[in-house]
Amino acid sequence: MSRVVKLAVIPGDGIGPEVVAEAEKMLEAVTADSDVTFEKTHFALGAARYLETGDTLTDDDLAAISANDAIILGAVGGTPGEPRLKDANIERGLLLKLRFTLDHYVNLRPSKLYAGAPGPLAEPGEIDFVVVREGTEGPYVGNGGAIRTGTPHEIANETSVNTAFGVERVVRYAFDLAERRRQKLTLVHKTNVLVHSGGMWQRIVNEVAQEHPDVAVDYLHVDAATIFLVTNPSRFDVIVTDNLFGDILTDLAGAVTGGIGLAASGNINPDGTFPSMFEPVHGSAPDIAGQQKADPTAAILSVALLLDHLGLREESLRVTRAVEADIAERDGSRTTSQTGDAIIARLQA
Amino acid sequence: MSRVVKLAVIPGDGIGPEVVAEAEKMLEAVTADSDVTFEKTHFALGAARYLETGDTLTDDDLAAISANDAIILGAVGGTPGEPRLKDANIERGLLLKLRFTLDHYVNLRPSKLYAGAPGPLAEPGEIDFVVVREGTEGPYVGNGGAIRTGTPHEIANETSVNTAFGVERVVRYAFDLAERRRQKLTLVHKTNVLVHSGGMWQRIVNEVAQEHPDVAVDYLHVDAATIFLVTNPSRFDVIVTDNLFGDILTDLAGAVTGGIGLAASGNINPDGTFPSMFEPVHGSAPDIAGQQKADPTAAILSVALLLDHLGLREESLRVTRAVEADIAERDGSRTTSQTGDAIIARLQA
Ligand SMILES: CC(C)[C@H](C(=O)O)[C@@H](O)C(=O)O
Ligand SMILES: CC(C)[C@H](C(=O)O)[C@@H](O)C(=O)O
Repeated sequence: MSRVVKLAVIPGDGIGPEVVAEAEKMLEAVTADSDVTFEKTHFALGAARYLETGDTLTDDDLAAISANDAIILGAVGGTPGEPRLKDANIERGLLLKLRFTLDHYVNLRPSKLYAGAPGPLAEPGEIDFVVVREGTEGPYVGNGGAIRTGTPHEIANETSVNTAFGVERVVRYAFDLAERRRQKLTLVHKTNVLVHSGGMWQRIVNEVAQEHPDVAVDYLHVDAATIFLVTNPSRFDVIVTDNLFGDILTDLAGAVTGGIGLAASGNINPDGTFPSMFEPVHGSAPDIAGQQKADPTAAILSVALLLDHLGLREESLRVTRAVEADIAERDGSRTTSQTGDAIIARLQA
Repeated sequence: MSRVVKLAVIPGDGIGPEVVAEAEKMLEAVTADSDVTFEKTHFALGAARYLETGDTLTDDDLAAISANDAIILGAVGGTPGEPRLKDANIERGLLLKLRFTLDHYVNLRPSKLYAGAPGPLAEPGEIDFVVVREGTEGPYVGNGGAIRTGTPHEIANETSVNTAFGVERVVRYAFDLAERRRQKLTLVHKTNVLVHSGGMWQRIVNEVAQEHPDVAVDYLHVDAATIFLVTNPSRFDVIVTDNLFGDILTDLAGAVTGGIGLAASGNINPDGTFPSMFEPVHGSAPDIAGQQKADPTAAILSVALLLDHLGLREESLRVTRAVEADIAERDGSRTTSQTGDAIIARLQA
């Protein structure tokens, strides 16, 4: 009864390859005695590849990646200010293109304050919530343009596109998740200003809420939500929000729960039509790349999300517990691979 | 050589009237011995007035308000969920209409951690920055719409409109401010996703930077900016950003600097074509309205911004110093008017 999982690995740029190496080590360790085998294909994509070949993500790349059951991604993005990357926009052309083409409509971002993690808050309380960020529409659709560019008469517009179809499916996912957690769901938007999109989000949340009478639902404007993330993060269980607000809230959430070096994420296609993609929330941090300074924890926790997504709950839990055990007793400075090894040692202990 | 300043006072809803009452007391106290007289006109606007008359902000209101030299506003917005307010949107129809019609293109929001203020951060460091938020365009223009509303085929769009004219004038203001402060300016946007508007902001900042060789300029994506606001707020001096990002960052900034009860703001029309408007960043908080529970400090600090705007620097400084002295030794709980009185006592000491 052995199972083969085809896994695309995209180490990417900057610290991406370093942290992904640790994620791969962990994946191997946690499945060593199991009947699951990972058949990995590595894809050299990102700024470095673009500079070499001029390609960001070709149709062939996409087809080859799509043929897998899941994807692990490190981080993409070249050195800021690199003149040859000026018009490239690796983020849009690679990362967002993957999310959109593979219909990753749930961008799942758990935030947890682990015992011993050095958080910035004086009184953090217990923090354990998940942001369900819409991943395929909103202000991220790339529906913008400019006229008279570079002149004093330039006008640059960006249109946020929101559909009932797109909102309902992610809202349903969030409610289902809330049912399995602490039965609390907070919609975050800016309904008093973005009345059309916000109104639709609110209406759909109200509708789906009817089917979940035991889930307590509330609403916060995005500005107020940032306040509560800092002053009272324990009030949150599941947050559901749009693509841009989710982007902002999850970096902030990372900051209040011990740093973005611990924040993992899943770009999920719940229908299973396309492979889901797991990545740390942090970026490629070119300034510390290649120096073994990056914290691989977020990448390793992304492996836990991957395993959970594949139905390997026990393995997923083991990874999370190993990370928890490591965080609880971290001290001194370690290299990227020392941290990976330490977490794996916990797993094997 | 006496000077008369015509002041429109809009107490608004919820805690608005209570905090504005303290602001007015302070204004009287600080100008008691000076040759400036404030000729005040009160405008009963907001949710309460809408429920009574059906009017939010009429042309007559606008004309009467515009005839003043400056405006003080408390807060507007009725009880959430009040069914009769459902389609009213007091925020758009009153607050944003004032900002847009009176061309308040600089939304000025200083953030300072006062000695003794109870902040949520374990190690806040010295916090003293100003967010210069664009106030008249971006995602706030109300350029949105929906089709098939309420059906599974609904599509709701919102267009962010950005002009070189609008961006350049606020960027120039921010650079001038940075010159008078610590010569540091941070542009916050999301240029890797909102490439058209973000590209224009970046280009204009680069251009204006040429005229300010001694101002150090950097750039942060809005998501990264939220991290630094929590982990290293002392790195900021002047932040310049768009309407929506500014909304989000300033609530967060309020949270990290001792609470939104201390955050003041000015909606400035630097050209002097229209009266500028000063208001606390906080909302109307209907849940604690009429109970003398609200902190009037933000409203009183808005008076300091008003005085500074009117060129009454000395008076402005006296108000700020009185607030500082009060915050340094706050304890126990006080009513709204006790706090106002305590700050005024510091002023007179
Ligand atoms: C790199 C960027 C396009 C991306 C986003 O905005 O989604 C990142 O910030 C993230 O949160 O994964
Ligand atoms: C009430 C709302 C429309 C307003 C805004 O979004 O600008 C408020 O949040 C603020 O920051 O002044």
